[in-house]
Amino acid sequence: METTAASSASPPPSFASRLEAAMGKKRSCLVVGLDPVLERLPGEVHARLGGWEPKGGGGAAVNTARASLGLALFSNEVIKAVAPYAVAVKPNTAFFERFGAAGWDALQQVCRQAKKEGLLVILDAKRGDLESTAVAYAEALLGDLIDTPGPAVDALTINPYFGLDGVRPFMEAAQPRGKGLFVLVRTSNPSAAEFQDLDAGGEPFYLRVARAVARWAQESREASGWSPVGAVVGGTAPEPARRLRELLPSSFFLVPGYGAQGAPAAALRLFFLPGGRGAVVNASRSVIFAHEKSPGLPWTEAVAQAAKSARDELEAMRVTR
Amino acid sequence: METTAASSASPPPSFASRLEAAMGKKRSCLVVGLDPVLERLPGEVHARLGGWEPKGGGGAAVNTARASLGLALFSNEVIKAVAPYAVAVKPNTAFFERFGAAGWDALQQVCRQAKKEGLLVILDAKRGDLESTAVAYAEALLGDLIDTPGPAVDALTINPYFGLDGVRPFMEAAQPRGKGLFVLVRTSNPSAAEFQDLDAGGEPFYLRVARAVARWAQESREASGWSPVGAVVGGTAPEPARRLRELLPSSFFLVPGYGAQGAPAAALRLFFLPGGRGAVVNASRSVIFAHEKSPGLPWTEAVAQAAKSARDELEAMRVTR
Repeated sequence: METTAASSASPPPSFASRLEAAMGKKRSCLVVGLDPVLERLPGEVHARLGGWEPKGGGGAAVNTARASLGLALFSNEVIKAVAPYAVAVKPNTAFFERFGAAGWDALQQVCRQAKKEGLLVILDAKRGDLESTAVAYAEALLGDLIDTPGPAVDALTINPYFGLDGVRPFMEAAQPRGKGLFVLVRTSNPSAAEFQDLDAGGEPFYLRVARAVARWAQESREASGWSPVGAVVGGTAPEPARRLRELLPSSFFLVPGYGAQGAPAAALRLFFLPGGRGAVVNASRSVIFAHEKSPGLPWTEAVAQAAKSARDELEAMRVTR
Repeated sequence: METTAASSASPPPSFASRLEAAMGKKRSCLVVGLDPVLERLPGEVHARLGGWEPKGGGGAAVNTARASLGLALFSNEVIKAVAPYAVAVKPNTAFFERFGAAGWDALQQVCRQAKKEGLLVILDAKRGDLESTAVAYAEALLGDLIDTPGPAVDALTINPYFGLDGVRPFMEAAQPRGKGLFVLVRTSNPSAAEFQDLDAGGEPFYLRVARAVARWAQESREASGWSPVGAVVGGTAPEPARRLRELLPSSFFLVPGYGAQGAPAAALRLFFLPGGRGAVVNASRSVIFAHEKSPGLPWTEAVAQAAKSARDELEAMRVTR
């Protein structure tokens, strides 16, 4: 399927360049993860929805259209609240997919809304499959079809388990469109070590993945010095940061684990290149559900304050790198 | 979200038991992969659609609703054609997700149609994320919400990269509902070896994953002797089959790679337990696009014949195991 974006003569500015520009302009490396859980939305959003669960409970009968509207209402307000402080939002597909087609519609609207508010959109889908299937995922999530999230998505997270032929279709979809990828290298969850830290020929498995990412980044390196191929490197395991930074000088890091997952800002310094370049840090629940800890504030104000204080804390660390 | 299925007193028959019963009844271990690519659908389907691409081309303007209708029409006809010969269908989410919300709607309809035709549904989504997110994916794809694929899905493929805490939510969603999982262990694509075959402490990485799957299978083993936790083991790498079979006596194997991807039926014998039990073999493109090689036949007849001959060839191998 030929697409206008992919076939235009001069490629658009690359994702990494746009991300770096946003970091300079907003003095921020904060990404806000949009992981909306219906049951945790503020009372005000539930009130505007007019209810989404039928009387008597029973999850099977949840109205997916109303539930999805709730996710969109909430996410759009979060986007407005964090736009001055964050460089990007990172919607996670799972929370939208939960409500089927209606959820996918909401996801697409949320991506567009973020773009409208001047935020970059990193779609956290962690897809990975063999070649012919990866082509379909790349079209779905980085492509140009209206009525899909693709047109409003700037970068996508992917899973490397299938090796290069599962990754290449994403590279081929991303680069001509000036979009980016973040390949899962070392994740931030407690059991990440189970497979990712296994000894593989004298070094942990995730380093072998990182070496492959380094090759893919090298072959797709742009004039700016950046590659569209970045890496997800969890902030909860700071030890490997120095090593990974050396291996991947052309790759942006997406660092989850700050905030609700527990990594302090100071521990994240080594994820950045000198000058505080080349990494963005994600906070999800600590920002989007900030209303739970600040019951006295209007909820969007609680979210804005949480985003501002995360931005400030991270920035104080970043400028000393 | 409480659900009727999960909270009922006696659990439904397990996926593995239902799969085994279907194998006996249909004398088949064939799973047909539903990987519908719009551009490859038979002319008859395109004619019924009345076109899906605007004049002048330009993929960005594809009508996703019509395209999705095409996927559903095609898939539903394939389902009817293969129902006598296959025990299950395996829709891959990517090909539906490509068309956004409309595609998700089609996916859900296709899963329901397969169930109606007496086929089990293995949803090939290969999802994997950290715990709180895996909960949302599990609800989306194995749950009970109407308007999501979940209610019609019998088993789901998942990616193990996050380790146990990314897998457990899927186990907790699957087992009480009598559903199953297939964890990616060794895939069938050419670059699978890049990471999966890396030496990890004296044995290939995929064997370490298999050892974890064996633990998860052991802890969830049912009275039937089967576990809801199965494994994806590619037919294109038959060497490891014997080893994996020893390690995973309670797990069903889902074996891709037969047919278009090149594995001959005879090479698949070792993926089965003695008596020809414990594995199903997937064929996707060689069955669903059989019309491309049989232009003289009505397309659904070509699909039915391809399914029958795959079933027969596999069955001849299976009964000698």
